[in-house]
Amino acid sequence: MSNIFPSPNPGRLRIFIRSLAALLDERPPEARLLHEGGALLQQLIAVDDWLPDVYTQAQPERYQQYLLHADSAERFSIVSFVWGPGQTTPIHDHTVWGLIGMLRGAEYSQAYKSSADGRLRPDGEPVKLLPGTVEAVSPTVGDIHQVRNAFADNVSVSIHVYGANIGAVKRSVYGEDGSRKSFISGYSNSHLPNIWDRSIELKNQ
Amino acid sequence: MSNIFPSPNPGRLRIFIRSLAALLDERPPEARLLHEGGALLQQLIAVDDWLPDVYTQAQPERYQQYLLHADSAERFSIVSFVWGPGQTTPIHDHTVWGLIGMLRGAEYSQAYKSSADGRLRPDGEPVKLLPGTVEAVSPTVGDIHQVRNAFADNVSVSIHVYGANIGAVKRSVYGEDGSRKSFISGYSNSHLPNIWDRSIELKNQ
Ligand SMILES: [Fe+3]
Ligand SMILES: [Fe+3]
Ligand SMILES: [Mg+2]
Repeated sequence: MSNIFPSPNPGRLRIFIRSLAALLDERPPEARLLHEGGALLQQLIAVDDWLPDVYTQAQPERYQQYLLHADSAERFSIVSFVWGPGQTTPIHDHTVWGLIGMLRGAEYSQAYKSSADGRLRPDGEPVKLLPGTVEAVSPTVGDIHQVRNAFADNVSVSIHVYGANIGAVKRSVYGEDGSRKSFISGYSNSHLPNIWDRSIELKNQ
Repeated sequence: MSNIFPSPNPGRLRIFIRSLAALLDERPPEARLLHEGGALLQQLIAVDDWLPDVYTQAQPERYQQYLLHADSAERFSIVSFVWGPGQTTPIHDHTVWGLIGMLRGAEYSQAYKSSADGRLRPDGEPVKLLPGTVEAVSPTVGDIHQVRNAFADNVSVSIHVYGANIGAVKRSVYGEDGSRKSFISGYSNSHLPNIWDRSIELKNQ
């Protein structure tokens, strides 16, 4: 292991984490949390200079979910989602609030809702997320969607924030026939970035 | 990066983090914090089955400080200190509360206090920490000490918890003549363990 943190600006992520923790300390109602948390996430993803390369690596088998930070009380987690060319999620839910910020490339998010016959039907047109865009999900504002890389020939990366340790949450994937299967996503990575070593920047002050 | 977390029992550390966060949420006075936080740390270090090997590696040049977790609001950090044979810290302070729990091997902690002539003098005998033992430091209970590996032929490992992101705190090292030099310790590692992936244990429930 090396002393040199490989990212040019881990401070951006550290500030986001501190700001979100301060917001959650106020126990805001969900609408305010999504609004103000979304604004914080928008600041985080406004500049693509802070995510270490190792958390942007696509894999040929499936999309990757790299945990970047988990809050001590598991009030929130931050995940880098990396889609290889053409990769897609199953239709799935979250069961907790979530914010999705597009960092690099683009993705389509298609919302679903249950219809009278128990099947899932698309709820409106797919939303195209471009870098800088933030979208929200939750059992209140709409929790079931399918996400896919907008590119057949490029990697896309989005930064997701959830109101839990999302990799450990029991939730569901769905078929369009309404069939439902329990899943726990886990994470693709066994190590998190150390964004907390400020010794070099502080020495230079 | 692999899906398989290399540690047999990351749950012990995760439970410690959650419990300490809950304690800090109550904003306890320092005496209660050190007492109850110390009891939590004692539970953490009671069994040596949870720390991944990569955070127990000594280096020949100097003792290692591996960050294991930083709280979102930097209310606390958890560090694995690894002493190679005969390694020692300089005389140093912390400026915040700290708890030291001995996991493996043994170390001596020698407290210091200022005397009338401005020099530092040993404050009592060195305390020998054995596995399972917890010691506290703080500006209130005594903040200046020197720590050394009790073994000339073995690695020792202790788990430290501090009331800040300790690697980013401006603090001091001292000479016995009372001379003082500012330092920021940083950390030895660029990656933290991902102790948050509970997908395998939850699937087995
Ligand atoms: Fe989703
Ligand atoms: Fe110390
Ligand atoms: Mg926290």
